[in-house]
Parts: sequence; C-alpha cells; structure tokens
Amino acid sequence: MEPNPLPESTPLFDRINLPSDLKQLAPEQLPELCAELRKVILDTVSVTGGHLGSGMGVVELTVALHYVFDFALDRLLMDVGHQSYPHKLLTGRKDRFHTLRQKGGLSGFTNRFESPYDVYNCGHAGTATSAALGISHGDRIVGADRHVVALVGDAAMGCGVAFEAINHAGGEQDDGRVLVILNDNRWSIAQTVGALTRYLGKIRTGPRYTQARARLHQILQSIPIVGKNLDENLDHGLDAVRHLIQPGHMFEALGITYHGPVDGHDMPELLDMLGRVKDLDGVKLLHVRTEKGRGVPGSAERYDRAHAQKPNLKSKPQMLPVEPDVVQPARPRKPGRAWTDWFGEGIEELAARDKRVVAITAAMPDGTGLMKFREVFPDRFVDAGIAEQHAVAFASGLAVAGLRPVAAIYSTFLQRGYDQVFQEVALQNLPVLFALDRAGLVGEDGYSHNGVFDLAYLRTFPNMTLMAPKDGPELKAMLAFGLTLDGPCAIRYARGAAPGLGDLLVDGVQSEPIALGRMEVLREGGDGAILAYGNMVEIAIAASDLLRRQGVQIEVVNARFCKPLDRAGILALLDRHDRVLTLEDHAVMGGFGSAVLELSAAEGPVRAHVQCVGVPDRFIAHASRNEMFEECGLDARAVAARMTADTRSKV
Amino acid sequence: MEPNPLPESTPLFDRINLPSDLKQLAPEQLPELCAELRKVILDTVSVTGGHLGSGMGVVELTVALHYVFDFALDRLLMDVGHQSYPHKLLTGRKDRFHTLRQKGGLSGFTNRFESPYDVYNCGHAGTATSAALGISHGDRIVGADRHVVALVGDAAMGCGVAFEAINHAGGEQDDGRVLVILNDNRWSIAQTVGALTRYLGKIRTGPRYTQARARLHQILQSIPIVGKNLDENLDHGLDAVRHLIQPGHMFEALGITYHGPVDGHDMPELLDMLGRVKDLDGVKLLHVRTEKGRGVPGSAERYDRAHAQKPNLKSKPQMLPVEPDVVQPARPRKPGRAWTDWFGEGIEELAARDKRVVAITAAMPDGTGLMKFREVFPDRFVDAGIAEQHAVAFASGLAVAGLRPVAAIYSTFLQRGYDQVFQEVALQNLPVLFALDRAGLVGEDGYSHNGVFDLAYLRTFPNMTLMAPKDGPELKAMLAFGLTLDGPCAIRYARGAAPGLGDLLVDGVQSEPIALGRMEVLREGGDGAILAYGNMVEIAIAASDLLRRQGVQIEVVNARFCKPLDRAGILALLDRHDRVLTLEDHAVMGGFGSAVLELSAAEGPVRAHVQCVGVPDRFIAHASRNEMFEECGLDARAVAARMTADTRSKV
Repeated sequence: MEPNPLPESTPLFDRINLPSDLKQLAPEQLPELCAELRKVILDTVSVTGGHLGSGMGVVELTVALHYVFDFALDRLLMDVGHQSYPHKLLTGRKDRFHTLRQKGGLSGFTNRFESPYDVYNCGHAGTATSAALGISHGDRIVGADRHVVALVGDAAMGCGVAFEAINHAGGEQDDGRVLVILNDNRWSIAQTVGALTRYLGKIRTGPRYTQARARLHQILQSIPIVGKNLDENLDHGLDAVRHLIQPGHMFEALGITYHGPVDGHDMPELLDMLGRVKDLDGVKLLHVRTEKGRGVPGSAERYDRAHAQKPNLKSKPQMLPVEPDVVQPARPRKPGRAWTDWFGEGIEELAARDKRVVAITAAMPDGTGLMKFREVFPDRFVDAGIAEQHAVAFASGLAVAGLRPVAAIYSTFLQRGYDQVFQEVALQNLPVLFALDRAGLVGEDGYSHNGVFDLAYLRTFPNMTLMAPKDGPELKAMLAFGLTLDGPCAIRYARGAAPGLGDLLVDGVQSEPIALGRMEVLREGGDGAILAYGNMVEIAIAASDLLRRQGVQIEVVNARFCKPLDRAGILALLDRHDRVLTLEDHAVMGGFGSAVLELSAAEGPVRAHVQCVGVPDRFIAHASRNEMFEECGLDARAVAARMTADTRSKV
Repeated sequence: MEPNPLPESTPLFDRINLPSDLKQLAPEQLPELCAELRKVILDTVSVTGGHLGSGMGVVELTVALHYVFDFALDRLLMDVGHQSYPHKLLTGRKDRFHTLRQKGGLSGFTNRFESPYDVYNCGHAGTATSAALGISHGDRIVGADRHVVALVGDAAMGCGVAFEAINHAGGEQDDGRVLVILNDNRWSIAQTVGALTRYLGKIRTGPRYTQARARLHQILQSIPIVGKNLDENLDHGLDAVRHLIQPGHMFEALGITYHGPVDGHDMPELLDMLGRVKDLDGVKLLHVRTEKGRGVPGSAERYDRAHAQKPNLKSKPQMLPVEPDVVQPARPRKPGRAWTDWFGEGIEELAARDKRVVAITAAMPDGTGLMKFREVFPDRFVDAGIAEQHAVAFASGLAVAGLRPVAAIYSTFLQRGYDQVFQEVALQNLPVLFALDRAGLVGEDGYSHNGVFDLAYLRTFPNMTLMAPKDGPELKAMLAFGLTLDGPCAIRYARGAAPGLGDLLVDGVQSEPIALGRMEVLREGGDGAILAYGNMVEIAIAASDLLRRQGVQIEVVNARFCKPLDRAGILALLDRHDRVLTLEDHAVMGGFGSAVLELSAAEGPVRAHVQCVGVPDRFIAHASRNEMFEECGLDARAVAARMTADTRSKV
C-alpha cells in the first residue's frame, strides 16, 4: 500500500520525548505518528544529509518496537545503525536531531556514548546478532530478566559473522529471549546479492499467501496417510512437511524459530506479531518486509537514491554549519573530480587494455566508482555482497587462475577481510590489487568509518606493496604500475575530491614516472622537510607555501610508497635536514611515519629528528572532514606550525 | 564398518609416485592401497608428530578424488590443509614425507610453493570454498576447462567466510564446475559446535535411510491430492516436499545442489558418486561422512586424541632432528609448565573469586587450557566454534551485560576477528580481555600459524591495553590486573613452556607488582640496555649473561606493556644509554620496538640509538621453534652479538 501523505504539522510527535510518552498513545494513533516521523526525518535529512532510506523504511517497525517493548529495560541493537533515525527521535534526542552527523551533534549510527537507549555501536554490518546473543547470555548469568532485540537488514544477514551467530545460537538453544528481526528490504547499499536474498524472495508472501497457507493446512490435515506412514527415521521429513505451512526452513534447519513474514508497514499486524513472539523462549527470527526509503520522493523507482542524502548547501538555515566533502585545500584549485572517479576511469582504461583485469566490490559498486565498469565489462565484474572475507579470498582465487583482480573496498571495510589479506593473498604472494577508497578521515560517518588503520594492518605483511597517490593522475599511474607487480599491493586514496593534473605543480617540477619504492621530491628547501604520504602531499605543499611567506624554505617530498620505502632516498633526506616531519592521514601509531622511524633505526643513526604527524591515538568522532583534519592538527596551518615549533610534539 | 587392519608391507603404494600411477590400479585394489597409506601415515607421524586425525579420515576420499579427477589439470583445495597427508603421499612427495613439518621439509599444510598439486595454502579454516569459486570464475574468464574441488571439513563450513562463499555461489549460479565436498567427521579440533552440526546430524543417514526414502517416495506419489490442490503460490511448499526425498534442503535453499550423504570409507560408493556429480554444472555440494582418525589406535573412543600427535622423541631414527616444543632456554632451568597451563590455572582462580569472569574459546578449549574451566564453570564457558568474529562480538555483548569476558584465542586466529576487536570492543571501550596464546613463532605449524602480527594490529586501536608477561606467575598477575581495567586489553604469551617462579630471578631482584604502563628493571648495567617484551625477557637475560662473561654489563628491562608504554621509564632508559635494543617475538614492523621509536620521536631527541630486534619482514616457514628463533636472530647468542656489533642492523 501507499505510504500516508506527509502531514503539515506534527501534533502527536510534539508530545513525545521518551518512549514512555509513546506508550500513552492509542494503537490507532500510531500510523499518524509514523507519518509525522517521516516528515521530520525527511525535512531534517534533506538539509543535514545522511542515510535516509534505512530509517524511512523502519518507521513503523521502530514505533511498534518501542510500543511493545520497554527499552529502558530491554535492549535494542540496530545492525547497521543507519536505521536509527526514528529511534533517535523517540528516545530523548529530538531537540538535537538537526545536529545529525555534525561535529558535536548526534552520530549517524547508534552510539552507546550518546544515549542509554543505544546499547551498542553498529557501523560495520553484521555483528548485532552476535552482540545480542552475548548480552542475553550475560543477562542470564547475572540474573537480569529482559528482552534483547536485534534489528538486522537482509544484506547484513549475509555477512559471515551473522551466520556464525545464527549457527551458534541454533546450536546452543539456550540463549535467553533474543528476537532477531530480519528487516528485509531487498537492498543493502547496492541491491542485495547472494542466495540468501533469493531465498528470502521465495518466502516473501504474495497477497494471497495467507489464504493459501490456511488452505494447505486443511489439505495436509485431511491426509491421514502422511501422518500414519512416515517412518520414525524421517523426522526431518516431517520437519519438511511442516515447512509447507511455515516458511523459513533454512533458519529452522539451523535451530532458529522462524516467524513471518509480516508487512513492516502494517501497524496492526506488526503489533500483533511482536506481541506474540515477544515472550517465546529461545532465539526467534521475525521476518519483516519493508520498503527502503518509504516516503522519500522518487525512492520507489530507485532505492539506491534513497540510501544516502548529501547535505543541501542552499537551504541550511538554523543548523550548525555544513561543509562540503572536500578538505579545503589551503592552496586554491578548481574543484576536482573525486578520487573515486579517478579510480573508476583508471581501472576501466586498464581493463580495456588488459583482459586479465577483474574488478571486485563488496556491495559498493557505486561507492567505489565501478558502476560504469560493471556496464562495460559485466563478465569481469563481481559484487560479493557485504562479505569482505569472501571478496578477498575470491580475488585470490582469481589470481591463482592467472587474472589480475582489483578489489575495490573502503579502507575501513577491508578490516573485515584482514585475515584473508594475510593468508589468502600475502602469504601466497598473489597479485591482488587492493584499491582502498575512503582511506583516512571520512567526515560525517564518523569513527566507525574512518580508514585510519590500513597502513598499520597491511604493512606488517611480507610481500605487500603499499602506495598512495598525491593526485588523480598519479592514482591512475599507480593502478597501472600495481598491475605490473607479481605480488599483492594496496593503493589508498581519500574520500572527496582529488587534485587534478597540474594542481600540485610546484616550482615547475614535473611529476616523475612511478618506480618501485621511489619517492619524488616536489620542492627543495634547506629549513627542514615534510615527507608526505598520499593525499597529504597537498597539505604539505600548502604548509610549505605558508612557511615560504615567513621566509622558511621547506623541502616537500611525495613519498608514494609506504612499502617498500625509498630507503636510499629517505636516508639521504634524513641526513640533509635537522628536522623532518612525516605527514599522513592515518593513525600515527604503526603508520607511514612509523615505517620511516624503523628505517632510520635500522640504518641510522641519522642527522634529522623525525617527527610523525598523523591521526592521534583516539577515535575521531563525526564532523566534517575539514573539522576532523583541524582536530587532528592535519590542516596546512597546523602542519606549518608544527614544522617550526621549538617544543616537542604533544599530540 | 571397521577399517582394514594395517598391512605389514606396502606393495601397491611402492608403485605409486604420481596420481597417474594411481590410475593404473583397478578399482578393487584401492581399498588395499588405502590400508597401506594409513600404515605409512601412522608410522611416520608417530615419529615426526603432526596432525594425524584429519588425514587418516580422508584416505579413501583422497584416493577416490585422484582416481576420478586429474589434478594435473583440475584443482584440488583442502580446507584446512591438515587433511593433506594422503594427498602429499600420492603427489610426488613420498620420499620427503618423513620430513613433515621440519625445517626444510614438507609443510604440514597444502602449500603452493611445494608442489604443483597444491594450488592453495590453507592453514586458517573456512576459505577454500571462496578460493575455489574465484579460481573457477577465473578459469571461465580465461577459457580454461577444468574442475575445481574444495574439500571442506564440517567445522570449517561453520566459519562465516564459508557461508559468505556459499551465499555468493548460490546467488550467482553461474560459477563453473565447482564441487564442494563437505567432509563431515563431526569434529573440528574440539567437537564441532553449532546448529550446522546438529543439522548435519539430522541428515546423516541411518542404515535404513535408503529404504525409508524409497518408501516415502512411493507414499507421496500415491497422494494425488497433494499435487492437485497445491496453489500456484506454493512453489516453495513443493520445494519442501521434494526435501522429504532429498535431504540437504538448507544448502538447496541457498541455491547449492546437494548430493549425499555417502560413506567416506566405502570406496565403490565414493567412486560412483564422484563420477556422477563430476560433470554436473554449477556449484555442487557432496556430503561425505568420515571418521576422523580412522585407523588410529584409540581414536574411536576419543577423537580429539587423534587430532594432533606430538613427536615421539624416543623413536626418532633416520629422520631429521626433532626438537621439543620449548625454545631452548640459554639459561638452564627446570622444564616449566606451558604458558597455556599458567593461563588455565590463573583464569580458573580468578573466576572462583569473581563471578563476572566468563571464558570464551573459538573451538580450542583444550589448546587454550580451558578444559578444566569448562568442567568447573560450565555456565561461564562458551565455545563459539571456529568463528572468531562471532566469538569476539559475543564477548563484547557479555561485557555490555556487565560481565568480564576473557576471550582465549591464538594470536594467529584472532586475525579472523580483527574488525570485531576494532568495532565491537575497542571503539566501544568494552572490558574484554584477550588472552593471546601461541603468540610469536610457533614452530612446526609454520607461517600460517605464527602469531607475529598481533601487536601491530592491536596497538593502533585507541583504548587498548597490551601486556606480555616474562614468566608464568607474571601471566597470572597480568590476568588479575587486566580484569581490573575498564576497557579492553590483550595479553600475549608464547607456545611451549614458561619460566616459573624464580626461574628468571636476576641479581636477587624481586619482581614488582603490575602497575598500568610500568616496566621493571631486572638487571642494571652501563654498557647498553635490552628492553624486552614478554617471553623475550628470558632471552634478554640469557644474552646479558653471555655478555657479562665478556665483561659487558647490560641493563635488562622487562617492558611488560606495549600500550600504554612506560613513557617516563623508557625515555629515562633511552637517555641512560648510547644503545638500546628492543627485543620481541613479533614482526619488527609495527611491533613493540616500533612503539618505542614512536615515543622517542614524539618526545625526543634522546641519547640512545634504538635498534629493534624482532621477526624480519618475511614469512618464517615451519621448523622447530629453536630453529625459527635462530633463523630470525632471536636466540640469546645472536642478541648478544647484536648488542655489541659495530655495524648497522641488516636483518
């Protein structure tokens, strides 16, 4: 059915601050409240930006959950937290809702540091069921009597960790009162892939399902021979017959009681079903069908449009300042194309020249810039779903078969495939090229999505080559170079716009071709040096511009490689200067600077005192990227100040 | 049925060097060949040590696979490679089989650098299906026409990544000729846990299964009303009816064709079934029941006895030298208890005092020393199966519920849960204590199992506390201390025997109580210092003993903490000496030494030239632990030489 039209005002919602207020409404009033919530979300997110579709799809479900359960006592986990917007509006945060994803404002995900109603942070998908089982298990040990509810998207259910949780729960069969709600909207970020989706499609009901089920029930009961003749060896057979009446036998095969499917926008049905399953013992799965982006104009045609909304810069009124995606270049340049687009163009050109190039994504064909590649080379494009472990292992298999797989995965999400990068790729020295998009500080998605650990977790693996480009053309050159290597390599690049050709031209110095483990000197100077990695080269140049105005001449080097390092080049640099800053958009622990320190320890002593500038040892919460950079002392002004400071670093 | 008695001689096997020789035998001769293979494996592994049970269980299956397929062209992947012993004997490696797991000898796993018949390295479980799909997909792209077979244990099938692979394959339905063989022996390392196991139990056939199935088939066909009245909306219902006849509906629900189960020790049945499924298109799952450790004396009573065999030191004849599990202490001490046992005792004592302590293992209750804990505190013990992602997320849930979970996981296997350590634990600052057994170089299991990356992957996470004890009593003290922290912490300790109380007593200095971020000076000296982490303290003391005989007085410091570092203590140390070595049983990249370099860069300049001694940047292949330590320059003699060397480090 069609969603209710959005109301002009929000009289019901105005009365609600906490879930206890919600419980004062009559059940018949809840649909109207849902329409009001949709209006508030749409009005707000169209200005602030954010993940619109998930929240709009679970308005009724969230209201029903808060109506049936008491989450002051019970526990609600959301996997992924994108779904949390209506929940936030109902749990004491309506007055701050317009600060969503802004510095100091509400997080775009559930966040246990934000509200007692958020018991768990869920940014990366798939873990809520495990956590819910752990919480429930713990509750039983300490004797706490409460319900634990995990709201899990259908795509998140395809994550390996979600299967591990279901497998464990079904095996134990003693884990308290856990309700897993499968929020089946048939879309993850891209369209959900995989067999689970098709399976869910099978058990998704048509309009005549309920009557048909009842009729079948009658039919089966009228066949005495089935009951009489089934051998005692055929218990599983009887189970299967039961599944004629009750779909969801895949889950039941794993020991999970399956309920549903129910229409996630039909409030009476939701209330009825939640009330009935609430007090059943054990782990229950309730299958709820929802429509992602319900009520978002145009979302019925293209669900992916409804996933995330960019902030509307023209109409920002009384809100906190909203900034664009790009770190403000301290050096003026024309707005560049996104790093992602440079990647997409580069990989497509390479694939046209080299038939061995295959692109792999983990549910992010759009986010990683592979939409056009998928169209042009459908046979050489693989979307593995939200399953980075499998994506990496699959890529290694492609390499065994003689191909040149390019796995385009956000830096933060490759963490999920860490062990596969180790065993399947590095240990076997297979030529998989990792294209790490969204490396570094990512802005509004906040700390669960910052990609600031990849150098630390990748560079300790033997056989790896690690690169980062200073600008878009260099990204393309590095992709081409990476495909010539006989082992694994990873190229990291940032969110947002990249400098284009010539944007970083300094003192007329032309860029050099890529050579393994070779840095390039971009600007000479005798008053110290900045050895910058990847997108931080732009900041280094800007800092050196600032310093030049003060008469301080700084050498600026584009490191290009974190592994192998340019041993000779860096040692010479460290002997040319008294002070060298390493500069990276990555945790200062274990990153590029740390690699430089290891080199100078192994080969030194050297003349220079090396100082490492990067992301400090704390989680950097949501804010604009500019604000994050400033908070970390990674903007040009702070870097310039650091270069000339007399004091020791205290970041 | 009972396995054949082991023969006295091996006339058939003596004729076989390559699979092509095997194919010369008549099918009727294969069971006798299997008996001969069992004899060879048992005779050899009882001397060399190794993973006995898996290989003994798949002798018939391996022979049948090589008989039906041609793995000179086709591809065989083994998940996990423990199963590979009979495969190695049939693929040109019989003459080297007695060198199993020894330095320079055969690996205990499949290894693509060892034989063209090993296309893939599988040490950590669960990834073979992904790799097989990738290989097959790649084969189709390049136009190679071959079969890909993945042999997967039932426990490995419970890994999240295996589910991701099945989910992907079933969704795509276009991935060439891939045969996944589910080797269902009902045991992983401990008894397989989880719902999948129970499900497999349901479809495991009793002797009367076949007849019953046939009878049911008759029955169903005799009920016209079922066929006539099922509504067209009920296709999924018809699927379910079909599952009465064909078990495996869970896999079929995911789009995988299921075949079996077949008796994995019945050669005619195996040959028949493999021949029939071989040329079917798409991804097929063949369910084979086997008996782990078949033919191993006593294995019928206790399968776990059959998993791994320690080398028999008394009866090592013409073989390469076999060494015990312990790194030879350069300082004589009585053989100590294993680190694992100190942990088991410590955690049990703490659980007796603190009801919040819950122990979690990932299929390793024995290996991690938790067998007694499980008996004493059954309600506070959780075995999550080979599912480290879930284990870590589950532990975080326990922490949310107010408990103090202790996740005892080998260093190398926690890699599989890396992203959960990040998001579920560190990001939420939850008090999960990670007990990282088998940290450092592990010996015969080789490079897939060396735990030499944990400091690098854990220390970059904010909120983490990282410790390592010098001896058994300190491990217990650190466990107690770790449970007092309000956030996550990890304690790493090695494989093998630990120094006991007083074993490391140096110059009469008594051990100090544990305090957050505080090192302890064990020996004073003015000619340099060694700052050692964890089990390397023993090596540092031994090295300083050696140097003392040359009149060189070295300060020896037990670092205790990698995070937070003892900033004041270390900076003072670095100002007391011209040369300081950091010493760790971990990759020199990104490890403890690197943390010390970061500190001295941030707070320096300091007087000392710091040199980092650890595992160099290459994968260290199987050998005894002593040999591994020597290869890495981590034995006492090498460390002493390094301390006094004039030259710069070139490791």
